[in-house]
Amino acid sequence: MRLSNTITNITGGGSDGWELFLKARGMIAEGIDVTELTIGEHDIKTDRRILDAMHASALGGATGYAMVPGIDSLREAVAERLQTRTGVATGLENVLITAGGQAALFAAFRALLDEGERALFIDPYYATYPGTVRSIGGVPVPVKARSRDGFQPRFEEMDAQAAGAKAILINTPNNPTGAVYSRETLEAIAELAQKHDLAVISDEVYDTQVWDGEHISIRALPGMASRTFTVGSMSKSHAMTGSRVGWLAGPEEAMAHVVNLLTNTNYGVAGFTQEAALHALGLGEAFEEEIAAPFRRRRALAQKALAGQNAVRLLPPSGAMYLMLDIRATGLSSEVFAGKLLEERHIAVMPGESFGTAARGHVRVAMTIPDAPFEAAIREIAAFTQALA
Amino acid sequence: MRLSNTITNITGGGSDGWELFLKARGMIAEGIDVTELTIGEHDIKTDRRILDAMHASALGGATGYAMVPGIDSLREAVAERLQTRTGVATGLENVLITAGGQAALFAAFRALLDEGERALFIDPYYATYPGTVRSIGGVPVPVKARSRDGFQPRFEEMDAQAAGAKAILINTPNNPTGAVYSRETLEAIAELAQKHDLAVISDEVYDTQVWDGEHISIRALPGMASRTFTVGSMSKSHAMTGSRVGWLAGPEEAMAHVVNLLTNTNYGVAGFTQEAALHALGLGEAFEEEIAAPFRRRRALAQKALAGQNAVRLLPPSGAMYLMLDIRATGLSSEVFAGKLLEERHIAVMPGESFGTAARGHVRVAMTIPDAPFEAAIREIAAFTQALA
Repeated sequence: MRLSNTITNITGGGSDGWELFLKARGMIAEGIDVTELTIGEHDIKTDRRILDAMHASALGGATGYAMVPGIDSLREAVAERLQTRTGVATGLENVLITAGGQAALFAAFRALLDEGERALFIDPYYATYPGTVRSIGGVPVPVKARSRDGFQPRFEEMDAQAAGAKAILINTPNNPTGAVYSRETLEAIAELAQKHDLAVISDEVYDTQVWDGEHISIRALPGMASRTFTVGSMSKSHAMTGSRVGWLAGPEEAMAHVVNLLTNTNYGVAGFTQEAALHALGLGEAFEEEIAAPFRRRRALAQKALAGQNAVRLLPPSGAMYLMLDIRATGLSSEVFAGKLLEERHIAVMPGESFGTAARGHVRVAMTIPDAPFEAAIREIAAFTQALA
Repeated sequence: MRLSNTITNITGGGSDGWELFLKARGMIAEGIDVTELTIGEHDIKTDRRILDAMHASALGGATGYAMVPGIDSLREAVAERLQTRTGVATGLENVLITAGGQAALFAAFRALLDEGERALFIDPYYATYPGTVRSIGGVPVPVKARSRDGFQPRFEEMDAQAAGAKAILINTPNNPTGAVYSRETLEAIAELAQKHDLAVISDEVYDTQVWDGEHISIRALPGMASRTFTVGSMSKSHAMTGSRVGWLAGPEEAMAHVVNLLTNTNYGVAGFTQEAALHALGLGEAFEEEIAAPFRRRRALAQKALAGQNAVRLLPPSGAMYLMLDIRATGLSSEVFAGKLLEERHIAVMPGESFGTAARGHVRVAMTIPDAPFEAAIREIAAFTQALA
C-alpha cells in the first residue's frame, strides 16, 4: 500500500514527547499508586442532568442523521453565547457544530491552507497543533513565547516568521502555560494579521477558566471578525470532554465552504449529543463556574504551597487547568526531572518539551485531582525540587 | 480571509443534484403531504436497548476522553466480525473506530492521496465520494458503470483510467444502484489494483442488506488484504445513522499512521456511543436481519407491483435499501421526470443525475417508508410513467 507523504509525516518524524505519560499509565496498570497530574481532564464526570437530557433526546427520536451544520437550536445558542461574550454580532450562519474543538481546528486549517502553505502557532503549544497542520499537508511554523514574558508572544518574533504565511493559531487561555493573553498581545497579533493578511484561528476552549484579568476574544478587536475563526468546545467549560461537541465560528462566507468539508469528514454530529450540549448551555453561568471552581481553588492552594520557594518557581497561571513550574534551578532537563519525579515519588507531570521547545526547563502540572492529594503533591514536588537544586 | 483552493473546490463547482431533495423538504415544510423516497435512512429509530446501553455507559462514567483508536472492546468486536465474514485474519490492530463510515472514508483517502493525486470511483456513486477526494486536495476520477451491465464496472473501463492513480473506491452492496458486485467483478478490480499498484477502498456499509447472491469483501481475495481499506458502519446494519459510529479496517502498518490522523481530526469518538455500538453488535445476526427485513419485504412488493410494466423498468436490486428505475421510455431526463412526479403526484425520488452521469434516465427510490404507502407509491410511479411513455 503506497501511503501518502502527508499521512506518514503527521508526527513530523520526531518523538511526541508523551513517553512520560505512557510510562505513568504503564505503572498505574501495574498497580503502582501514581499521582497523575498529566491530563487536561476534570476529575468529575459529565453532570447527570446533561446525560439524562441526552438520553431523553435519544428516546425522543434524535437518532437519525442530524443536519450537517448542526441543529439550529444549538447553533443559535452558541451564536448567542459568542455574541454575549465578545460583543460581535453573531448568528447561526456564523456557527458550525463540530465533533469537538479538535474537529473545528482541523476544519479551520483545511479552510485556510493548501498543501505546502505555512501556518504560525505559538510555542509552547497544545500537543495536536503541528500535527493538525501537517494532516492537511501544511507547514507548521512555531514562534517561541518566553517564560520571562509570561509566555505572551512578541510582535517582532511573530513578524519575523509571518511573510508568506496564511494563518496564525493562538490559544488563550493557554494550554500548557496558563497564560491569558493581554489586550496588548492580542492587538499585536491583530496588527500582524492585518500586516501580512493572515487569518487568525483563535482556540478559546478554556474561556470559562480565567483566574486573573479577563478573557478577550481577538474576534472582538476592530477589523478582526472578518479574518478570525474561533474554536470552541463543551469539553472544558462543561466537563463534556468525551462527548466530542464543539464549534467553529467565523465569517458567513467562509462557513458556507466549511460545511462542505464537514459533509465529507463526519457527516454531522449526533443529534442527541447536540441536544445534550444545548441542555448544558442552558444550565447557565453558575454551572460553568461550578465546573471551573476546583481549578481556581487548586491554583490558590498551589500558590500558597509554593510561596517563598526558590528551587521551583510557579509562573502565575491566569487561566486554564494547568500550572507551569520553572525547575531550571535543578540544572536538569524537564524530561529528566519528570522521569525522576515519577520514578522516585510516583508523581506524573508533563515535561515542558512535550509542548515544544519554548517550555524547556519547565513542567506542566494539571490541576485535575482532588484538592487534598493535589496540595500534597505540590508540596512534595517542591521538596523534591529543593533537594535537587 | 484567503480561503484555500481545496475548500472552495470541494463541490467541484457544479450543482450537487440535490435540488429535488431540497424542494421536497420545502414542500413538506409548507404542509404538503409528500411521499418521501429520497433518503437512505430507516423508517425506525435506533432500538431502545441500544439507547439504554448508551445511557448506562454514560452514567457508568464513560464521559471522558476515549482512546483515540477506539475502545479495545469495540475494536475487537469489529475485528471478530470482519474475520468471521471475510475469513481474513483480523485483530484490533487492524481496526480503528471512526465517527461514522464517512470519517473512515475521509481517513482512507487522506492515508493514500497527496494533493493532486488521483483516485478512481465508480459512477453512479454515493453523493459524498468526489467531495471527499477533493477535501484532501485529490482528483476524483469517475469510471462509468452501465445500466445494461447491472451497474457492475468493466475491467477495461477502469483500466483505461488507472494509470498513475493511487486508489480505487468501490461500494458493494451499492448505493444508489442496489448492485452487489459479483466475484468476477471483484476479481477484475483486484487484477486492476495489482496491475496499477492501487489501494482499494471498499465501502461495505450495506453488507447486511443482501437480497440476491452473497456479499463478498474484496479484502478476502488473494493478495488483497495488504492493499485494501474496508469502510464499515453501524448506521445501516443497526439503524444507528445518527450515532456516527463506524470503522476503518486495513493493514496494521497503515493503521499506525491513520491513528495519527484521527488524533487531529476528531480526537476520538465518544466512549458511550462506542459502548452502545458494542451492545448493538452483541444483539447478533437476528437483530441485523430484523433491521434489514423491511427492505427485503419492500423490494419484493416493488418487484410484484412492477412485473410486466413496460414504461418503467426495475433493475433487479441485489442489495441495499434502494431501487433503481429505468424511466428512459418516457423520453424525459430523470430530473424532469422527478420534478414532474413531485409536482403532480407529490412523490419525491432522486434523479439519477444526483449520483453522477451513469444513471441518467434512472431514478433512485429509497425503500424507507412503511410497506403499504411504499407499495402504493410504487404503483403510482408505474401509472405515472406509463401515462408519460
